[in-house]
Amino acid sequence: MRLDFSVAVHSLLYLDENRPRKIASRELAASLQLNAVMIRNILSVLHKQGYIEGSVGKNGGYQLVRELADINVGELYDLTIPPTISYARFITGDSKGTKASSQTDISANISQTLTDLFTLADEDYRKFYHQFTMTDLKQDLQHHGYFRQLTNPANTENS
Amino acid sequence: MRLDFSVAVHSLLYLDENRPRKIASRELAASLQLNAVMIRNILSVLHKQGYIEGSVGKNGGYQLVRELADINVGELYDLTIPPTISYARFITGDSKGTKASSQTDISANISQTLTDLFTLADEDYRKFYHQFTMTDLKQDLQHHGYFRQLTNPANTENS
Repeated sequence: MRLDFSVAVHSLLYLDENRPRKIASRELAASLQLNAVMIRNILSVLHKQGYIEGSVGKNGGYQLVRELADINVGELYDLTIPPTISYARFITGDSKGTKASSQTDISANISQTLTDLFTLADEDYRKFYHQFTMTDLKQDLQHHGYFRQLTNPANTENS
Repeated sequence: MRLDFSVAVHSLLYLDENRPRKIASRELAASLQLNAVMIRNILSVLHKQGYIEGSVGKNGGYQLVRELADINVGELYDLTIPPTISYARFITGDSKGTKASSQTDISANISQTLTDLFTLADEDYRKFYHQFTMTDLKQDLQHHGYFRQLTNPANTENS
């Protein structure tokens, strides 16, 4: 779910903005406009991976323990949206290969070809996110359009 | 749905393989292991765009009217999987921006930042498919592993 990625990004930016205050998951949920239950999984992942520190319960709350500049957006993407292991439901033909009577039997062979194509496309897609750190996201938050300029310098005027 | 793309790719390869025979949608559906109803929409799109010729009904059937080498895989991707106009359901915070009280209000501003990030990532993703023609897909069908070598020449042995 791409939402998990958005939750992670939004949470880290919020914790950064409010340093060094401890933020309860309820306050975070209000900023995300999501139910607290929906974000707890992701907070737990971020906690396990050493992005944030904190605890739930009374006097609990989370703090960011890393610098935005050291947090790669692609790392967050990989963490929250694991590579799809199987594209089976997007693939036509005979996925079991039981009818592989010849090398030119499309139905028997197309499944592995499409799986490779989608897998390689997904690897490439992740590289896009790996170009950026959370500082870039913060920049765009404050000056919207920063991203578009970063990825397409031709958009830059008077430079 | 990514399935639409797979249906288009599989159909064109099947029609190419069986030139110049007219292929009924029922025969095509059997190769795709899908219901004929599920592929008719895509066949109609391919027909409208001038990839295939043909008709339904008695003595009907489809033929490929273009060469595989002239069919760009990215074009097929764009045709069958239109760019997502709204990523709204993946985005946290206040999408209406009604609470934009300050430039640093994350909840109010993150929606446009994430939309840009996802839009630019999607544009980049499409470029991957545009590197290839249908001839590349046919190559991989016949010699599986061709794609992996094409996109990562480091995999090539003894070259």
